[in-house]
Amino acid sequence: MVEVHGRRRDALRRLLAERELDALLVTNLLNVRYLTGFTGSNGALLVTADGAVFCTDGRYETSSAVQVPDLERVIRRDCDLALMARAQGRIGYESDHVTVDGLARLTAAAKSNPHPAPGLTAELRLIKDETEVDALRMACAAADRALAALIEHGGLRPGRTEREVARALDEGMRDLGAEGPSFATIVAAGEHSAIPHHEPTDAPLKTGDLVKMDFGALVDGYHSDMTRTVVLGPPADWQVEMYQLVAAAQRAGRQALAPGTPLADVDDAARSVIEAAGRGEEFVHGLGHGVGLEIHEAPALYRGSAGTLAAGMAVTVEPGVYVPGRGGVRIEDTLVVREGAPELLTLTTKELVVV
Amino acid sequence: MVEVHGRRRDALRRLLAERELDALLVTNLLNVRYLTGFTGSNGALLVTADGAVFCTDGRYETSSAVQVPDLERVIRRDCDLALMARAQGRIGYESDHVTVDGLARLTAAAKSNPHPAPGLTAELRLIKDETEVDALRMACAAADRALAALIEHGGLRPGRTEREVARALDEGMRDLGAEGPSFATIVAAGEHSAIPHHEPTDAPLKTGDLVKMDFGALVDGYHSDMTRTVVLGPPADWQVEMYQLVAAAQRAGRQALAPGTPLADVDDAARSVIEAAGRGEEFVHGLGHGVGLEIHEAPALYRGSAGTLAAGMAVTVEPGVYVPGRGGVRIEDTLVVREGAPELLTLTTKELVVV
Repeated sequence: MVEVHGRRRDALRRLLAERELDALLVTNLLNVRYLTGFTGSNGALLVTADGAVFCTDGRYETSSAVQVPDLERVIRRDCDLALMARAQGRIGYESDHVTVDGLARLTAAAKSNPHPAPGLTAELRLIKDETEVDALRMACAAADRALAALIEHGGLRPGRTEREVARALDEGMRDLGAEGPSFATIVAAGEHSAIPHHEPTDAPLKTGDLVKMDFGALVDGYHSDMTRTVVLGPPADWQVEMYQLVAAAQRAGRQALAPGTPLADVDDAARSVIEAAGRGEEFVHGLGHGVGLEIHEAPALYRGSAGTLAAGMAVTVEPGVYVPGRGGVRIEDTLVVREGAPELLTLTTKELVVV
Repeated sequence: MVEVHGRRRDALRRLLAERELDALLVTNLLNVRYLTGFTGSNGALLVTADGAVFCTDGRYETSSAVQVPDLERVIRRDCDLALMARAQGRIGYESDHVTVDGLARLTAAAKSNPHPAPGLTAELRLIKDETEVDALRMACAAADRALAALIEHGGLRPGRTEREVARALDEGMRDLGAEGPSFATIVAAGEHSAIPHHEPTDAPLKTGDLVKMDFGALVDGYHSDMTRTVVLGPPADWQVEMYQLVAAAQRAGRQALAPGTPLADVDDAARSVIEAAGRGEEFVHGLGHGVGLEIHEAPALYRGSAGTLAAGMAVTVEPGVYVPGRGGVRIEDTLVVREGAPELLTLTTKELVVV
């Protein structure tokens, strides 16, 4: 792993050179993790043209010696200030992470005014390396298997509550080695399925319900994200119709994933299927988002998103149709954009499952 | 609950008036939750002298209608910009939360330059109201009971791994209705107990080990925080000595909790006990921190902290002594500062427990 982090810092140094910066102060902890492997809750990194200095506080002195064996370490609580005080030359800071008040403190600690340098590490993180894809693959597999185990063991049945089902999915993912769920698991049954981001309640599942489950696992800090919607018992015609429409839109969205495709076109590929059915108003959110060290990160696959897809981006494709008071369907995969067809990481069937 | 949030917004309006602001744009989601009850992942609030407008995106349209029934709602993805564009007069923004790049976007959207207004909601959140103390009390009770159940059911025994014990505590808290652990549970046995913030491993517990458990529950968004250190089997003299020293320091820290006491004096009260034993170097972190909607929030009880305690503050008191390669002890409670003695929320015994 030390080599991986070293390679990432080298890639960052190339971006620094392009921007004529002598160093970058990295204070976003996820970026620190990406560039060093450090997983604690307080740390910062100063990357210079020919080196790097890491800082954390006393709580992580021992663990950071293991996680970050290859870098000079400073042990201080105010890591950003400690590293800025040492920095020489033209120093960049993460203006998309540092607060207005934080910049005032950094400037006071610096030898010369720091320069805004947003998005440099984010630019690297946009394209996943194979170490990252491996973690995403494991995270997606944990979610797939947890759902399979839930259904196989009869865990999805009338009388069970949304909260119980959510808990069973969470436990299932932990049983499979995940650090935990990658966000608060959504289980939404019956009318609740029409609420895009419903918090599970003590309401019992009933025969005839659409049951929408949006969940994922966290593995090595990487987040998977998957939604499946099933029906308890024989589906009604409107449920089948809604499901097939969303499935067709989701397929169109996946098929639009290719290097060079404008991000907005991916949203449009899926959305136009739903709009053609006259139900565009019932698809109330964007099509998808990047996933990685964050559950939501760049790129956003929204109507009007700027930018284009590139090989190595990991994204979700998750159209939905929601009819308040009745029910809703969302189908979501996590995929990696590749030359040719995208790599599907969430492998659970997208046929309509009747439990 | 609507009344509680209305009272909090009224208190905020008094701070706005003191600072001659016509409105405050609240973008820190925890502050939005505190002032409205909204629990989603995207939202903002504009508080004016005589009203308030809430914004979230389409995913939360249904749930926010239930959680925030008393406020005008705007449904937009870029909530901060949408609300700033509507604001009139002298508008404050949370300069301790808004990033440097975020301020540039806000300024472009605003009718006039926004004014930095850090810490206003934080000032209110510093003093917990009884709704908040109730949530903290429930969160602490869940942690107390989960530890009691673990020990009662023989869950703490040689051969079990740190990770298994951590998971059992997490599950125990969920069984008791907690939303989950309030942070990544620490279980550190034997030599690992000398690592202040150790991540549980697959190492099995052994007879003679100190087992340090630092964990808490999340209830209604409020975090409890407790550490207990037990011994598996008859303790060695050095373990008893270390434990009694930390217990004495922790007692001194708790006894120093009173309205008007300088924060640094609380740290000193505990630290001086450990220093008097010649072991000051082995207490490598601050004494404690505020808890509430965040696991770490103001006030910090550190050496050199500025400010004084006030009734209604919720804090941890958690001295520790760590000897690398040998073991460590930390004892931590969550308490509320009251007139007279503080209210102890974590009720598990602090006698040395031999399992």
